[in-house]
Amino acid sequence: MAIPFADRLNNVETSAIRELFKLLGKPGIISFAGGFPDSAMFDVDGIREATSAALAKDPGAALQYGATEGFNPLREQLAHFMAQKGAKDVVPEQLIVTTGSQQALDLLGKTLIGPGDKVIVEGPTFLATIQCFRLYGADLVSAPIDGDGVQVDKLEQLIAEHRPKFVYLIPTFGNPSGALLSLERRRRVLELAVKYNTLIVEDDPYGDLYFGEAPPPSLLALTPEVPGSRDLLVHCGSLSKVLSPGLRVGWMIAHPELLAKATMCKQFSDAHTSTFAQATAAEYLRAGRMPATLDKVRRVYAQRSHTLCEALRRELGDAVSFVQPQGGLFVWARLTGAGGKVTDGNTYAKQAIEQGVAFVPGAPFFCAEPDHATFRLSFATVSEDKILEGVQRLAQAL
Amino acid sequence: MAIPFADRLNNVETSAIRELFKLLGKPGIISFAGGFPDSAMFDVDGIREATSAALAKDPGAALQYGATEGFNPLREQLAHFMAQKGAKDVVPEQLIVTTGSQQALDLLGKTLIGPGDKVIVEGPTFLATIQCFRLYGADLVSAPIDGDGVQVDKLEQLIAEHRPKFVYLIPTFGNPSGALLSLERRRRVLELAVKYNTLIVEDDPYGDLYFGEAPPPSLLALTPEVPGSRDLLVHCGSLSKVLSPGLRVGWMIAHPELLAKATMCKQFSDAHTSTFAQATAAEYLRAGRMPATLDKVRRVYAQRSHTLCEALRRELGDAVSFVQPQGGLFVWARLTGAGGKVTDGNTYAKQAIEQGVAFVPGAPFFCAEPDHATFRLSFATVSEDKILEGVQRLAQAL
Repeated sequence: MAIPFADRLNNVETSAIRELFKLLGKPGIISFAGGFPDSAMFDVDGIREATSAALAKDPGAALQYGATEGFNPLREQLAHFMAQKGAKDVVPEQLIVTTGSQQALDLLGKTLIGPGDKVIVEGPTFLATIQCFRLYGADLVSAPIDGDGVQVDKLEQLIAEHRPKFVYLIPTFGNPSGALLSLERRRRVLELAVKYNTLIVEDDPYGDLYFGEAPPPSLLALTPEVPGSRDLLVHCGSLSKVLSPGLRVGWMIAHPELLAKATMCKQFSDAHTSTFAQATAAEYLRAGRMPATLDKVRRVYAQRSHTLCEALRRELGDAVSFVQPQGGLFVWARLTGAGGKVTDGNTYAKQAIEQGVAFVPGAPFFCAEPDHATFRLSFATVSEDKILEGVQRLAQAL
Repeated sequence: MAIPFADRLNNVETSAIRELFKLLGKPGIISFAGGFPDSAMFDVDGIREATSAALAKDPGAALQYGATEGFNPLREQLAHFMAQKGAKDVVPEQLIVTTGSQQALDLLGKTLIGPGDKVIVEGPTFLATIQCFRLYGADLVSAPIDGDGVQVDKLEQLIAEHRPKFVYLIPTFGNPSGALLSLERRRRVLELAVKYNTLIVEDDPYGDLYFGEAPPPSLLALTPEVPGSRDLLVHCGSLSKVLSPGLRVGWMIAHPELLAKATMCKQFSDAHTSTFAQATAAEYLRAGRMPATLDKVRRVYAQRSHTLCEALRRELGDAVSFVQPQGGLFVWARLTGAGGKVTDGNTYAKQAIEQGVAFVPGAPFFCAEPDHATFRLSFATVSEDKILEGVQRLAQAL
């Protein structure tokens, strides 16, 4: 039989990156292709203790169905976690727990996007956001970025022209760009929200992974400075990059009416996020282990980022350009063509695999007008000696 | 601002049942309203040991991102679990793990249902199925049931008339009906699938909760008897009712092409189900504790069901009619009006709350032509002495 699939599936295709990932099984390959944290840094003892505490304290609650909005002890801990990061007025009722922040994106799609609706995203942006929103029929508009994040003048033009359902940004160490939206631009974004009465979605899975000084406050934390902006801001957070992706614990903060509709949609999506994982996360946060965990991952990723950037400059010279990230997991680079070297990220990725090193070409991260010279390197899971060897191979592949 | 919600939200309303549930906080109330297993029966020690084993064996894998299709050790255990239940030819690759079986329904909606598409469901059926499919724009058609499950002659007429995207059934101890589809009818359903080239979705969260003899084989296990039916059958399973809802571990078995599209949709819904919960479930199944757990829950629920049904007959007499369930969590009853007693389930529910006992009126479980005289009682979480007291209150409320 021909299965009668819904038309919405025509809006997406399985990722171009997937094809490349099939090649990663090659023995001895050094991979800068991942987009995930290093398993070796998971605080396994802390998580084991948190689970034991959750099962000792109230096993019935940890293993039973729970409220769609989330497990209350976790909502309390997450509100406290947000307060420590500058969003001091977040109360647990303003926050729902999601099955990773990916589900927050899905719920925003389900709640807000109808076929043909415009949504503005950064060019480049997170690949699974593009696909997620397109499944709901979004007509995506690409807002250009530079080393300081989204270009706000261009963003204003696009908002005025397209009147989008919402604007989706990863302002802090974005995937794939690694860019950090400046404080000045953050204020401008909130002002644009108010001026055009437009929802802004701030996806912030990487904000805690800074290497030196803390980044500017999140858009959420800045809303008190821009009257009227709080109701227009949606903030998505996640424990995936800082504690463990396997828990699948994310959260969303939004206007109560939007949160209520998202909760209704979540009820029919997965009823609720695993209470077992939520109770574990709540106990982990309550135990006060997060600051030490963050210190450790920041230190390790900072060192790896430094090593990678130094090596790229030394080994690849002016054949590539990039802005050294101040946090996150990624270096976003561009082939300049200097010295007649390769200028296509996809071609370069194939040549690199031949040399035993992998990364992700940048074009698929654009919803429109891809820059084919770009590519993304993640340093998060590669040890320093492997980074050095990997960059030598990158040089050989040029 | 008025939040620009998507049109699809107009297809659903927050549950009528929800209003009733708000009254459940009343002190001293005896509740037959729940649809969940008894927390007191969770095998907490077994789950604790399973988590310890998962974190000891491969903590990196248990806490890291995982394949969207599911954690392979769990897929292997679930294939084995299905084989023990008669679906002997299921291999791990034919099965994806879902975030509870609710997510399987959501993925079927996302993958198959477009606005206006017909889907046949039982009348009555699971409330969250109705809402989930309507969010994708389904035009639901209600197929009548009796004590032996869906009436297959009527089902054939409806399939022929409406040519639905698929037929959704809970053939074994369905929610809310508690009905058991007979072996004869199971074969007929599979024959209809082939005759009309129509997908059949078998939702089977309750099949393991039988009180006496095992029920007839699942539709999935019967497909070898009806050539061509296997490709047309989707089977959804869950650990929620037999082990723990809080793990949020369900699964879906379907034609490879459908499974591939559902996996793609899942990638953008929540990336994957919690690997932490999946690794725990895999270790639990591997440890061989499930048979003893199932023996225990079957025994306790059987006793509670027996006590409830005896008491209903004794205390309510011919004012209600019902088919005594052979498994599951529910008694589905109907007010007969005998002796001039109340005939409206919603009115009766309100009167019952006044008397300190709660249940769910039946009308919302119908996608069309509700039978307002019906109501659902769950015996799963109520001790036997409370059951007796609760039924006395039900009698007073008549």
